[in-house]
Amino acid sequence: MIEKSPNVVWHRATVSRKDREERNGHKALVLWFTGLSASGKSTLAHAVEDRLHKMGCHTFVLDGDNVRHGLCSDLGFSLEDREENLRRIGEVSKLMLETGVMVLTAFISPMRRDRERVRSLFPHGDFLEIYCDASIEVCESRDPKGLYKRARAGEIPDFTGISSPYEAPVNPELRCDTGNDSVDNNVDKVIGMLRQRGAIPA
Amino acid sequence: MIEKSPNVVWHRATVSRKDREERNGHKALVLWFTGLSASGKSTLAHAVEDRLHKMGCHTFVLDGDNVRHGLCSDLGFSLEDREENLRRIGEVSKLMLETGVMVLTAFISPMRRDRERVRSLFPHGDFLEIYCDASIEVCESRDPKGLYKRARAGEIPDFTGISSPYEAPVNPELRCDTGNDSVDNNVDKVIGMLRQRGAIPA
Repeated sequence: MIEKSPNVVWHRATVSRKDREERNGHKALVLWFTGLSASGKSTLAHAVEDRLHKMGCHTFVLDGDNVRHGLCSDLGFSLEDREENLRRIGEVSKLMLETGVMVLTAFISPMRRDRERVRSLFPHGDFLEIYCDASIEVCESRDPKGLYKRARAGEIPDFTGISSPYEAPVNPELRCDTGNDSVDNNVDKVIGMLRQRGAIPA
Repeated sequence: MIEKSPNVVWHRATVSRKDREERNGHKALVLWFTGLSASGKSTLAHAVEDRLHKMGCHTFVLDGDNVRHGLCSDLGFSLEDREENLRRIGEVSKLMLETGVMVLTAFISPMRRDRERVRSLFPHGDFLEIYCDASIEVCESRDPKGLYKRARAGEIPDFTGISSPYEAPVNPELRCDTGNDSVDNNVDKVIGMLRQRGAIPA
């Protein structure tokens, strides 16, 4: 079939985020996990994802593993590069929200200013900050990658909590005691918050 | 409940792309639409998305509208910046594939080398190049944004097809005659290809 008037502009169909959320049966949100290295951000994010997936929700975890080697492989760890790293993660999260997915991010993101900048990309209520609160002592005793040891030895400059500040969230949407509480308990807390906010079915 | 041994590493649950594809009932793929400005890339991509959405598939269109103002807002149109622009789009597409989504991209992407570089990010068969083939005469006669007119007047340097080359795909997975065929006809072709490849149910 040959179209008679190829110049006529075809009305552009647009599948919206709302269409996708309705189909998926839950809201699209960003769950921004922040905390010290080894505070349990990634573990909690993946455990929450696992629970949400079993409930039929559409989810994705963004963390160093899938961002630093790809999208942000051109960036180092200077102050400027860290800012740009978080900016891109924020923008990718924003695109993913449009696909109807719950995005769970697990980055130290130590500076309040940087987290607020990412938050400002989203409509109110779409960005939920979850503080993975574990003391530096607990984190250092875990030290799964030996990073604290290396930082103490002066081998890693600007290491958060040792030689670089971590600015704890003042008013996060949720605080999880990842130093003392079990992972399952913290997952329950996150799921409870999502239910309370009407993001997932009660 | 207080965990007795917070130092014990919790086994990380991982929801995989395969899990998501099984739930969604279709494969995750990149449909990379390439062609001249006004060749109908965006129109076709959105029309294909609309059809796929109605079939229950999970989709997302990446185009200048949602990329240039956000993730790539720091990039201009120099050769270097265009390359970086496409690199990031490729990396974002890769992340989105992990979420189980069919990604439809609509960018001129005039250089073979750049398209091949993006293709190389994906396992064989995950990246499908769709050539939106419309002659420069047809595109120029459409000129919905008046860009060709401005380019002819010398107001836009390095405009693809006028003062900058477009390297047509040599061996694309699909060629659509977007200069003469109707949008619906081309949508049928794309859907047919996806069925033939087993990406969506027959």
